[in-house]
Amino acid sequence: VALSNARNEIVAIYDQALDVRSGPTACLKEIITLIRLGLRETSINPQQLVAIGMGVPGPVEYSSGLLIAPPIMPAWGGYAVRDHLVEEFGTQVFIDNEVNLMALGEMWSSEAIMNNALFVKVGTGIGSGILCNGAIYRGADGAAGDIGHVCADEHGPRCSCGNTGCLEALASGAAIAAQAQEAAAAGKSELLAQLCREKGSLTLADVGKAVKEGDQEATRIIKESGQRVGQVLAGLVNFFNPERIMIGGSITQTGYLFLAAVRHAIYNRSLPLSTRHLAIEYSQLEGQAGVSGAVILAWQELFSNPYATAHL
Amino acid sequence: VALSNARNEIVAIYDQALDVRSGPTACLKEIITLIRLGLRETSINPQQLVAIGMGVPGPVEYSSGLLIAPPIMPAWGGYAVRDHLVEEFGTQVFIDNEVNLMALGEMWSSEAIMNNALFVKVGTGIGSGILCNGAIYRGADGAAGDIGHVCADEHGPRCSCGNTGCLEALASGAAIAAQAQEAAAAGKSELLAQLCREKGSLTLADVGKAVKEGDQEATRIIKESGQRVGQVLAGLVNFFNPERIMIGGSITQTGYLFLAAVRHAIYNRSLPLSTRHLAIEYSQLEGQAGVSGAVILAWQELFSNPYATAHL
Repeated sequence: VALSNARNEIVAIYDQALDVRSGPTACLKEIITLIRLGLRETSINPQQLVAIGMGVPGPVEYSSGLLIAPPIMPAWGGYAVRDHLVEEFGTQVFIDNEVNLMALGEMWSSEAIMNNALFVKVGTGIGSGILCNGAIYRGADGAAGDIGHVCADEHGPRCSCGNTGCLEALASGAAIAAQAQEAAAAGKSELLAQLCREKGSLTLADVGKAVKEGDQEATRIIKESGQRVGQVLAGLVNFFNPERIMIGGSITQTGYLFLAAVRHAIYNRSLPLSTRHLAIEYSQLEGQAGVSGAVILAWQELFSNPYATAHL
Repeated sequence: VALSNARNEIVAIYDQALDVRSGPTACLKEIITLIRLGLRETSINPQQLVAIGMGVPGPVEYSSGLLIAPPIMPAWGGYAVRDHLVEEFGTQVFIDNEVNLMALGEMWSSEAIMNNALFVKVGTGIGSGILCNGAIYRGADGAAGDIGHVCADEHGPRCSCGNTGCLEALASGAAIAAQAQEAAAAGKSELLAQLCREKGSLTLADVGKAVKEGDQEATRIIKESGQRVGQVLAGLVNFFNPERIMIGGSITQTGYLFLAAVRHAIYNRSLPLSTRHLAIEYSQLEGQAGVSGAVILAWQELFSNPYATAHL
């Protein structure tokens, strides 16, 4: 939760993990508490709050502000998140997919031109946000950018969605952690096995730590994950011809090996014309891309349509 | 070559095959002859010609009207096609990739909503045109939509671009004809072998004919081609979430088997949210989508920028 003033400066920010599986009522209660804390700590009168922008990790029907069949947060499907916050604060509320907001936040803080660009988040899952002609592109149903279930290997492992070889099943943070645990169990890496014994299970952060200590097996897993992501992005570069791809999410904490593997796969497979001016970088905002984008979205929407209030 | 009046009605149309490999000078000479023929036959004074729209089968840098490294027509790379026509007719000329124009033509003749849509041309090669928020989307370098070299099978055959398993090497008209010839040579189809003996080699049209006569091998080849195209489009549906996919090019003449295979692959692999309202159809304009789009482009550009003449 971040509070911004009208100069687009963040005046308060709180980083707190929420378990979306606890459902919308419990999560929104904590979010509301943090917003009220921010208002108190900055001595802002709640009536001065002009708008709220919010990102959620699932597909959003933007016009209604409803989450549509969100895979990792089923209890939120159809829940009126917007109405809940409108009622609490009596202000305008705009809800979008979190990766869309990360793309917007990155664009607005970047000195480079990012009119047609992708923001790819590789965390527990994999998703992307699309900027098209300088604005968030949401597609016909608000589902655009959902690259986690693009097929990356016909003969790959089964995914939670029911298909096989989805990018998320091969290269996400969850897939990386699972592969590292298998490697530890198979005796392929002493370091991973040791970390696994100490903690009971492995996370993406553990694999990143092993990479930094030069562990061969961890290095191979991260590199293959980057190649898989790069292979899917290579096709999207041919199709969408963006001028910039930003990569964010917890994968960036494992170091630059992943980025190098992504770049290698894209330059190897995409058409030369499409990569001529293409920049592929890690997000410059680290964990703040999402809240930065939420602030921009709220300001843009507030001043894009004089009749917007009628929708509430 | 088609001539349109200001009511967007085609008043003359000429369908003549040109070999782009004969180079820009020879091709443009024939094109100019056809335009002059059309003007004579419709008794239109050449001075009434207000603009020319033209589609070419390669990537175009739209601002300059230059073809950039076009794979199947290398002699056209960097050739000033626009200047050539401007000099000849003293009018404004707008050049774009042909599949972009097909998408535009289809949108303007369709009664369905096509704000975010793809036009996929499967002929000798494979390409696509993208409509985004109701306009042609060209990407950062004018290369958007180039799906012919997206990887459809890591272990697939080598492509002319140097990579392996490109969609074009697996599922284009040229690939289909080559597969049919192999099948004929291997004795897998009596009908294909007979057609091959009669004509020396096979074309996509021959394979279509064999499908209509119930030939099993031809049916398998077309079906597999449709599955490959559908598999790549399934990923793009997740990414771009279009409301409509139109398929055109000579593949449509082989019948509805190809379309059924494309649909099957997309509905099987794309996310349910993205296919909820998705229509997948053959082009309704048959061979006229390109010229229809060229006319729309010319009118749009003519009245989009009062300073456009300054660019010529």
